[in-house]
Amino acid sequence: MNAEVSATFTPNREIQLETLLMLAELGQEEQVRAGLVDLHPADIAELLNALEEPEVKQQIFSFLAPDLASEVLSLVAPLTQEWLTQDLSNAVLSDLVERLDSDDAVDLLGSLSEEQARAVLDQVPDELSAEMEQLLRYPADTAGGIMQTEHVEVLQGCRVNEAIEIIRTHIDEVPDIHNVFIVDHARRLTGVLPLRKLILARPDEYVENVMDRQVIAARVDTDQEQVAQLFKKYDLVSLPVIDPQGVLLGRITIDDVVDVLEEEATEDIYKLAGLGGEGDVLDSPGRSIRRRLPWLALNLFTTTVSATVIALFEGTIHTVAIAAAFMTIVAAQGGNAGIQTLTVIVRGLALGEVSLAHTKRILLKELLVALGNGVALGCAAGLVAYLWKGEALLGMVLALALVVNLLIAAFVGSMIPFTMRRLGVDPAVASNVFVTACTDICGFLSFLGILTLLLRFL
Amino acid sequence: MNAEVSATFTPNREIQLETLLMLAELGQEEQVRAGLVDLHPADIAELLNALEEPEVKQQIFSFLAPDLASEVLSLVAPLTQEWLTQDLSNAVLSDLVERLDSDDAVDLLGSLSEEQARAVLDQVPDELSAEMEQLLRYPADTAGGIMQTEHVEVLQGCRVNEAIEIIRTHIDEVPDIHNVFIVDHARRLTGVLPLRKLILARPDEYVENVMDRQVIAARVDTDQEQVAQLFKKYDLVSLPVIDPQGVLLGRITIDDVVDVLEEEATEDIYKLAGLGGEGDVLDSPGRSIRRRLPWLALNLFTTTVSATVIALFEGTIHTVAIAAAFMTIVAAQGGNAGIQTLTVIVRGLALGEVSLAHTKRILLKELLVALGNGVALGCAAGLVAYLWKGEALLGMVLALALVVNLLIAAFVGSMIPFTMRRLGVDPAVASNVFVTACTDICGFLSFLGILTLLLRFL
Repeated sequence: MNAEVSATFTPNREIQLETLLMLAELGQEEQVRAGLVDLHPADIAELLNALEEPEVKQQIFSFLAPDLASEVLSLVAPLTQEWLTQDLSNAVLSDLVERLDSDDAVDLLGSLSEEQARAVLDQVPDELSAEMEQLLRYPADTAGGIMQTEHVEVLQGCRVNEAIEIIRTHIDEVPDIHNVFIVDHARRLTGVLPLRKLILARPDEYVENVMDRQVIAARVDTDQEQVAQLFKKYDLVSLPVIDPQGVLLGRITIDDVVDVLEEEATEDIYKLAGLGGEGDVLDSPGRSIRRRLPWLALNLFTTTVSATVIALFEGTIHTVAIAAAFMTIVAAQGGNAGIQTLTVIVRGLALGEVSLAHTKRILLKELLVALGNGVALGCAAGLVAYLWKGEALLGMVLALALVVNLLIAAFVGSMIPFTMRRLGVDPAVASNVFVTACTDICGFLSFLGILTLLLRFL
Repeated sequence: MNAEVSATFTPNREIQLETLLMLAELGQEEQVRAGLVDLHPADIAELLNALEEPEVKQQIFSFLAPDLASEVLSLVAPLTQEWLTQDLSNAVLSDLVERLDSDDAVDLLGSLSEEQARAVLDQVPDELSAEMEQLLRYPADTAGGIMQTEHVEVLQGCRVNEAIEIIRTHIDEVPDIHNVFIVDHARRLTGVLPLRKLILARPDEYVENVMDRQVIAARVDTDQEQVAQLFKKYDLVSLPVIDPQGVLLGRITIDDVVDVLEEEATEDIYKLAGLGGEGDVLDSPGRSIRRRLPWLALNLFTTTVSATVIALFEGTIHTVAIAAAFMTIVAAQGGNAGIQTLTVIVRGLALGEVSLAHTKRILLKELLVALGNGVALGCAAGLVAYLWKGEALLGMVLALALVVNLLIAAFVGSMIPFTMRRLGVDPAVASNVFVTACTDICGFLSFLGILTLLLRFL
């Protein structure tokens, strides 16, 4: 009776991995199969992700019983899924599609070529194929695109013990049930009955007398980011999805929302770094070049513009060559401070901590921060420049230009994301490039401009 | 019977907000109270977050009945919570602590001064106060720091109908129950019984005959990031927390994990932008300066170093002043490309998509990407420089320096995060500063160095 409980219950994965690898290479099929049986599907998925050789991935995957295989397939990383499925026959793929949860089946079909997806759908039962085609029509980043059709619904007018019997008949298909959805005769959602309420209710009670009537549901065309916000705001574990008439179509569960949240965070991080789309660190070099080159080209354009600003002061640089060194300090500090401001605002907007209503207040705050930081850094930099080159003038110009550029950085770092949000554009996209372009140009302009003026009049 | 179901069931928040604001200002206490009753606690929290004036926040909060007030308090943003609690008496605070879930109560106590927390704890019952003090001792970023003690446990040897009765007596205290934890006489965790299994089991069955014995549990000292990984990997909604002897201490629920995931993503984003800690966009200017200045100072130091590199070439710049413009293009492109590489690797490491085992493979890929991008951008930049200044030599030096610097960017952008991970340091911390320091220095060095050599020998 003293079942052992461990922190993760996962046996030492590395040993398991090496053992299974060796056994697979030795062709000890039976022993590999036996070793896999002990593992949680999530551990097998992790093992498959970790394997280097696609052939070994495929071999180990081929040892899994169909039901386990489909579950593992829904858990592996996208790239591993591609490797595992690319050489499978359409017959095997259609069997997997039948066994997978509908949302995972749709993801699998979506990763195939249109032609192959067609061929696979031809081999599954008509009803399932029609359902899949319907699901494939919803945009991937909407409630319809991430929902699964598997759920338990109970007609109002049923009693609690009848609802429990309906759960019993669906438990294989919907193992992770948290709520029973109550519908009327037109299959319109009228209430939600959490299992905890069901378990405490009298067996002969009508479901509508115990269900929650204030239902939080998402329309099928709701953006996935809004869906995630609903889960976060109301601490949900599952959310019914309805059509515009209120008819129940399916449900979204919290594990899918966790994936959405990570995806959105990754996208924001990537955009802030000047990376388009949802690039993958393990992508091929060609794909990565296609993804990154446009942003570098945009940056090349903006830095060329700021280089022309420098070129305007060729005369000054010719006279005071060291100015070329100092101007880079002003530009770099402005860029850094601008990115700091930009980042807290973009993240604040993404998390809903700030809104457009905060624009003025935040701009004022950022200018104050810039003034504080600018004076501190300007004094430090000016002093260093003076001590280094022995010229008080250069140090003063550096200090003054730093303060000016930090104020500009605060202004553009604040206004660019708010303006983009106001225009309905994602504030994370390319904001970085624009902010550093401004701080470069203004950095060079302020330092070289002030210096040139002083040289002329002193 | 036709309850209306809306996408969010939230009435138009802005109208509600303005109405309530106006009513509050007019002193229409009863009407404000009435308006609040219709709202979901999460909506009231959002309303309180959105309000500008701390006094109005406090006034509206004071209208809430104690149970609602405690729930709303657990849902508002940290800054709002500070505003709401700063003027409350210790008696009111201790009442809130008693009503809050233990994890939220600990968060509230943690936000008070040590002295005030002490005073508040003195006013709650001894048992609760001892529990709170125990919880406060766990580091905030561990399983113990985020768990709640509220859970339902059932002694093995009980029958299913007895377990259901135990749930009934705890439902007020643990409204979001998903699993019943089964323990032995020493309160050691031996199994987990999900509600869906409980609901389908025969009433006179022993709980140990239906429970899951393969238990996924976290030790109380597990890092919160690992806890989040367990939830993600095994698609959990609640996780039992045990001490080293296996004794059940509490549980963590998925909504807290969602917060952890967002927090970790924010931290990574902030660190990549050169921002320490979990800075808040709505912080005071003083706090923000203290948080950002050290990173700007570090950047000032590294850019001063790269400025001294430029100073080495004063002679060259004196001769070819336009070189000062071109060198910034090389440095900026290298910085951009390096940050791209760094970001995909840091995020890949954070999400567990890549590990140290991938080092060589990723380095090779990044060098290939750099070569591809470098040749494309180098040709473009070289051509522009030639067309602009009419000097083929400058264009060629620019192109060559760009390729060199992009290769260096790929190298440092890959190796810095992997090396930091190998040293056990968070790869996101300050990686950015180091990468751009390297690409600045190498950018200036490669362009000015090649140019100087050519000027000398041609």
